[in-house]
Amino acid sequence: MASVTVWNEFVHEREGGDAAEVYPDGIHATIAEALDQRGHDTRTATLDDPEHGLTESVLDETDVLVWWGHVAHDEVDDDVVERVAERVYDGMGLLVLHSAHASKPFKRLLGTPCDLTWREVGERERCWVVDPGHPITDGLDDSLVIEEAEMYGEPFGVPEPDRLVFTSWFEGGEVFRSGCCYRRGRGNIFYFRPGHETYPIYHREDVQQVLDNAVRWATPNEGADAHAGNRNVDPRESL
Amino acid sequence: MASVTVWNEFVHEREGGDAAEVYPDGIHATIAEALDQRGHDTRTATLDDPEHGLTESVLDETDVLVWWGHVAHDEVDDDVVERVAERVYDGMGLLVLHSAHASKPFKRLLGTPCDLTWREVGERERCWVVDPGHPITDGLDDSLVIEEAEMYGEPFGVPEPDRLVFTSWFEGGEVFRSGCCYRRGRGNIFYFRPGHETYPIYHREDVQQVLDNAVRWATPNEGADAHAGNRNVDPRESL
Amino acid sequence: MASVTVWNEFVHEREGGDAAEVYPDGIHATIAEALDQRGHDTRTATLDDPEHGLTESVLDETDVLVWWGHVAHDEVDDDVVERVAERVYDGMGLLVLHSAHASKPFKRLLGTPCDLTWREVGERERCWVVDPGHPITDGLDDSLVIEEAEMYGEPFGVPEPDRLVFTSWFEGGEVFRSGCCYRRGRGNIFYFRPGHETYPIYHREDVQQVLDNAVRWATPNEGADAHAGNRNVDPRESL
Amino acid sequence: MASVTVWNEFVHEREGGDAAEVYPDGIHATIAEALDQRGHDTRTATLDDPEHGLTESVLDETDVLVWWGHVAHDEVDDDVVERVAERVYDGMGLLVLHSAHASKPFKRLLGTPCDLTWREVGERERCWVVDPGHPITDGLDDSLVIEEAEMYGEPFGVPEPDRLVFTSWFEGGEVFRSGCCYRRGRGNIFYFRPGHETYPIYHREDVQQVLDNAVRWATPNEGADAHAGNRNVDPRESL
Repeated sequence: MASVTVWNEFVHEREGGDAAEVYPDGIHATIAEALDQRGHDTRTATLDDPEHGLTESVLDETDVLVWWGHVAHDEVDDDVVERVAERVYDGMGLLVLHSAHASKPFKRLLGTPCDLTWREVGERERCWVVDPGHPITDGLDDSLVIEEAEMYGEPFGVPEPDRLVFTSWFEGGEVFRSGCCYRRGRGNIFYFRPGHETYPIYHREDVQQVLDNAVRWATPNEGADAHAGNRNVDPRESL
Repeated sequence: MASVTVWNEFVHEREGGDAAEVYPDGIHATIAEALDQRGHDTRTATLDDPEHGLTESVLDETDVLVWWGHVAHDEVDDDVVERVAERVYDGMGLLVLHSAHASKPFKRLLGTPCDLTWREVGERERCWVVDPGHPITDGLDDSLVIEEAEMYGEPFGVPEPDRLVFTSWFEGGEVFRSGCCYRRGRGNIFYFRPGHETYPIYHREDVQQVLDNAVRWATPNEGADAHAGNRNVDPRESL
Repeated sequence: MASVTVWNEFVHEREGGDAAEVYPDGIHATIAEALDQRGHDTRTATLDDPEHGLTESVLDETDVLVWWGHVAHDEVDDDVVERVAERVYDGMGLLVLHSAHASKPFKRLLGTPCDLTWREVGERERCWVVDPGHPITDGLDDSLVIEEAEMYGEPFGVPEPDRLVFTSWFEGGEVFRSGCCYRRGRGNIFYFRPGHETYPIYHREDVQQVLDNAVRWATPNEGADAHAGNRNVDPRESL
Repeated sequence: MASVTVWNEFVHEREGGDAAEVYPDGIHATIAEALDQRGHDTRTATLDDPEHGLTESVLDETDVLVWWGHVAHDEVDDDVVERVAERVYDGMGLLVLHSAHASKPFKRLLGTPCDLTWREVGERERCWVVDPGHPITDGLDDSLVIEEAEMYGEPFGVPEPDRLVFTSWFEGGEVFRSGCCYRRGRGNIFYFRPGHETYPIYHREDVQQVLDNAVRWATPNEGADAHAGNRNVDPRESL
């Protein structure tokens, strides 16, 4: 059981329309509730909160940060992005969802454009497990079939993942590396493609299972008492 | 808590001399006891047991197999090696210790010679943590200092590890990738260099901590219900 | 320009039918001619040749070995497999084509089952470049579109590739990691999925381009004068 | 043969003292000359040049950028850093030398602190080849022995390298991952630890060989005509 903070820019859902219908309290509320029901201790934070809700004290109590953003990436303060990056180096897990491929924290931590091709026509996605022994796939079938999805296509401008867990097939002919694991410092990062602001993907049982698995996988462990920080050290052996 | 089988060829320790003094009941007994005290359910198996003690029923109840061998690698039956490999593909963890770098299961699963340079003069080893966030390093300092060790040197003839956790420094001037993680099929494999048949390395608290951590890391999880087996399948989409 | 040996079990094409029509002189002849035209020095070898045509002297003059097999994997002599593996450790490149995913050399060198799901109904394949800066993709478009192909589906029972270059989309709904790079010892290995004994895939310009690129990528370089071989060495530093 | 730009902050060598004696025209001049003699087309650029000498037109003609910096990392303009990062994504190679582990372009492209421990007492370094088949090691012995070096120690705060080529042993008891390969976008990045502003390390034949090899390894290739850029695309298949 982890202490999870679900962050959402929370823009689409307050503008009415489909997003408001599908996620009336915001995507963050739906995800937080799903994780809460699976035993995690959850809170939420949004763009409009002071310091985007990601104060030092909130991050002090966060094992895993879940990040959703789409139209307001640029409004996220750079100091908060640095703060999140520092926490990841120290071990905080980070789950990056769908359109957060273009979020500041993800691009900052991976060091690449994280760009892709896309299409929004509600086509079918088959998100295949390509690493069936990975803990993020616990309890899944061989694939998640999503009847209506936005397409994301290769090339995906990220570093080669440490492990590739999912690869998606799209009705329109594309493929995409939909589940990518990275470590940066002591922190585990998982990018998970499925999701959208108007398709009800985060209400799905299997998607919630993935999020739960990913939170467990990304939860920090103790590690070794070994630190650098560009510091001068004495020799261990006599010279 | 995992169900662990500790395998040992059990040759040196029955020939008297230093090995018998340091590990009177065999290296397997020392390791099994250490893991038992840390909460695991342990059993042992040796070369002389029928089927080397690694029957189908024993492996059925084994989450993680620990392997120690040195002078009798060639006496291990190839059928048992295949059986172990199959279990690893299905998720069984495998810990490969010190001179078991040249054991049949390790070479079979990695597909490479797994050779190295060596020297046995009792020099000092500093086994450094290079991946301080890795769960196998939980609770360690920045390095394990072993006053008397056999040297293993690069190049180590293995595939590039999925993650490199430890790198050793030796008094005589060499380095070695001493902690290497691999996955083959659903199974996690960890090679850990420190250890020897006459130096009392497996009696050390920090080494036992690594073994405990590695057992926990290598314990199988459920994974996805996704299987290949070279089988013909129907299309998911209409053609 | 490399010295290339193209190996083929050469069974289907001698049995008449479609295979004989599409590859009247054998798949090896088509591939060797394509590589020859692109500047390589090529020869061929088949199952029925003495030592399968892979004598020590042939391998002495081989920079890159291309391997095609399908129905006769089991007829390949284990000693020849070991000989090929040894050469790969010493730097010989190995290209593994399509159904050779189940060949002895590939399974021997990777250490895994290399299994997959498959279907043979002549569906469309889109083989996407997912690593557009990789030299094996030089001169390609964003994907290879193959109108009639046998499907191979995930999970593909191989170690996580060192680099994933291609991922295929299939009309029937599956995906597959179709271009996988590995190094074993000093040798570079590339698995390339597209190909078949009756579809004319090896006659395609873009597929031949990939084979040419892959041969160049897999050609051995000098490397360092650093060798292990499980040998005892003197200390570099005074002890 | 590549078109190489050698960048140096060029501070130490103009302040007199040992640095001025060892590298009277600057480290960049020594490295550029060495690469020029090995057949590359070289130019240099320094911090004090307009736009640090890294204008768009200079980068247009640069296959591989070599970067040396130590005390003036913070004076490098962020716009130039972004320009360099963009070029790397498009395929420009980047060699990062010694204390440039803390340079802005390296940290920007890797997304991590890139910190380490250090000690400057002129101790012996043995920089071992751990990947003897890698082209960056062409023509080397099993190690580079540097009689007087600054120590850099683990943990090195970088992402797990795509390939680890060198690992250093230090007289004082530490180890370090001294040769690390990365790819970001289409660009190849190589970090090489040996070097210093007052020890004459860049005058060594073997170190110059590594730099030459690394330049060749990092030289861009054509790649595939596959691009993302977060753009909307039409379906390839009928929906």
